[in-house]
Amino acid sequence: MTIEEEAIKVHREWKGKIEVISKVAANSKEDLSLAYTPGVAQPCLEIQKDVNLSYTYTRRWNLVAVVTDGSAVLGLGDIGPEAAMPVMEGKCVLFKTFADVDAFPLCIKSKDVDEIVNTIRLLQGSFGGINIEDISAPRCFEIERKLKEQCDIPVFHDDQHGTAIVTLAALINALKIVKKDIGDISVVINGSGAAGIATARLLMSTGLKDVILCDRKGAIYKGREGLNKEKEEIAAISNSGMKKGTLEEVIKGADVFIGVSAPGVLTKEMIKTMAEDPVIFAMANPVPEITPKEAKEAGAKVVGTGRSDFPNQINNVLAFPGIFRGALDVRASDINDQMKIAAAKAIASIVTDEELNADYIIPEPFNPKVSQEVAKEVAKAAKQSGVARI
Amino acid sequence: MTIEEEAIKVHREWKGKIEVISKVAANSKEDLSLAYTPGVAQPCLEIQKDVNLSYTYTRRWNLVAVVTDGSAVLGLGDIGPEAAMPVMEGKCVLFKTFADVDAFPLCIKSKDVDEIVNTIRLLQGSFGGINIEDISAPRCFEIERKLKEQCDIPVFHDDQHGTAIVTLAALINALKIVKKDIGDISVVINGSGAAGIATARLLMSTGLKDVILCDRKGAIYKGREGLNKEKEEIAAISNSGMKKGTLEEVIKGADVFIGVSAPGVLTKEMIKTMAEDPVIFAMANPVPEITPKEAKEAGAKVVGTGRSDFPNQINNVLAFPGIFRGALDVRASDINDQMKIAAAKAIASIVTDEELNADYIIPEPFNPKVSQEVAKEVAKAAKQSGVARI
Repeated sequence: MTIEEEAIKVHREWKGKIEVISKVAANSKEDLSLAYTPGVAQPCLEIQKDVNLSYTYTRRWNLVAVVTDGSAVLGLGDIGPEAAMPVMEGKCVLFKTFADVDAFPLCIKSKDVDEIVNTIRLLQGSFGGINIEDISAPRCFEIERKLKEQCDIPVFHDDQHGTAIVTLAALINALKIVKKDIGDISVVINGSGAAGIATARLLMSTGLKDVILCDRKGAIYKGREGLNKEKEEIAAISNSGMKKGTLEEVIKGADVFIGVSAPGVLTKEMIKTMAEDPVIFAMANPVPEITPKEAKEAGAKVVGTGRSDFPNQINNVLAFPGIFRGALDVRASDINDQMKIAAAKAIASIVTDEELNADYIIPEPFNPKVSQEVAKEVAKAAKQSGVARI
Repeated sequence: MTIEEEAIKVHREWKGKIEVISKVAANSKEDLSLAYTPGVAQPCLEIQKDVNLSYTYTRRWNLVAVVTDGSAVLGLGDIGPEAAMPVMEGKCVLFKTFADVDAFPLCIKSKDVDEIVNTIRLLQGSFGGINIEDISAPRCFEIERKLKEQCDIPVFHDDQHGTAIVTLAALINALKIVKKDIGDISVVINGSGAAGIATARLLMSTGLKDVILCDRKGAIYKGREGLNKEKEEIAAISNSGMKKGTLEEVIKGADVFIGVSAPGVLTKEMIKTMAEDPVIFAMANPVPEITPKEAKEAGAKVVGTGRSDFPNQINNVLAFPGIFRGALDVRASDINDQMKIAAAKAIASIVTDEELNADYIIPEPFNPKVSQEVAKEVAKAAKQSGVARI
């Protein structure tokens, strides 16, 4: 049986990968008089007096909405809201398994930015956090920005920030191996969608100075024609040397290649033109920009991909469960850069100096220490940066 | 400890009455390759081709949203969205306990009809049904009407139809005791909000001809000044004798009193003016329109209330779990009058002719046969009325 056939078979058997259960008994008048009327009136009235008590008397303290419009699902593109739900349910499984976060999937039948924002904004009282997912760029940027303005619970677009955080974690450890400092290196990011731009921003906020983003037309630079708003904004703060040209041209001399793009776009020849000990993160899924084997043959010192069957899997699951766990634990009002950087450092720290080697720069997704450590450091960073509310 | 104090104590301990759990393992690469990427792509693609498969591959087949704006919560009034959530979670507990329906609570931070309708409409792909709850009249009527037009999943406003169904069930059995036929009796309904109007409509659809609704100003009749749209509509089809006056005046000679109004508004003197063997359903909660003791002293033959500490508790929990179970089981596109009447008859049928007496006209809420029987008959009625999709 192929993996596709088996996935269909098990999904048919599962009939949904999540379940909403009751935590309390409702088998007698006495049960009902506490869980429902008349007793339930009392917690209602207390919340009416102090809305913060909704985190005490309802499930809100542990509840994250996983929201999509189905417009950019995996590599499948715009498959529609209902068709995105198996992925959203899968995400909820990961939240629960790795960080004991109750996550509930919601798909929105609209592509309109304001309709999507309004829908989520009006539901915010039901949740402790919002994870937006698989919404196509550039709408995802505007949706996230507006939601952050309009919600007093944390909003996190995993396709942007999850990828950025785990990439930063991998880079922190890769740079130890090649003995380079983030302030001195040059990075080329191929792919200028949600993940690429967020990764560039997060790396810059930790000291990276020299970074060039590329899209299908080549390097992005200030003033290039036809850039959307987000690319214009990133062009204004990256590629300070105003390099122009194709990936092949701008990758010359670079220390690090980060691919969030398409299968096979990086060649051995290109790697050979990079600086000494190049670091290659080829994260296109399921087929990377170049295979680890080819990359190493071309001289790459450290190679990471998005796949579980190669070493150094750069996988968002290392980040989002622990990030929301930490944010919920201190009732954070936001997930800010300090928290994202703390998460990246926490992930990187799981690999000890003794363990660290070119084929082990990032922990396995199933290491239970990861989300614990991420949650702890994210909560600490939330407190230090003033967004924790308890 | 008072019930209020104990409710607060247990709600603090529970930290939420529902939980979202994972039904599948995610402890290895192999697990993840089926529940998440890459395997999950296959059910996504199948749903993209046929949206009906969302009922096969995701939890949608068993999932009901319990939605409120917090504007008419229990007897507490407009306490706001977050403060309504302990009630909504309690409702979800009842759905799961009595009918194994996964129910998820959502509160909407808006009082605007179109904002509420849009929010629910845009989320419909995530659910198999919508239970709206504790939204104040007359907005609840418009919200339900618009949602029924715009959603292809069943929409049910429990405050209206749940009450109407269980009242009809109680009436069916009460009429057996007083040996009267629904086509021959006269009914006065005190209270013309969501529950009162829906009850009048459902009783009329089963043969009741003579019914008068009252509000605080007295009997509602065609042409009375200051009626809202819903009262105008019900006035046009009820009170054909155009009776005017207070409850005290119009109750004279009535066979049945149905109260969905306020504590103590029915007096012994009023009951004494009713027809022979009067039936009294005094459902104001927690304090009924008259106590069963007083009603019986005044000559009432059958008395029901909303309370669990008196006989004949007319409680919505007898209806909504089984109704949604039945609707979900046949993937109904609507919950129509045929299904509501089938539910009422099913509830009434649980009390056998041998068991039936004035203090036992309606089954206990904890009788597990109730929701099973309701589900079976609702599913059957859905098929017969053409709204079943499987």
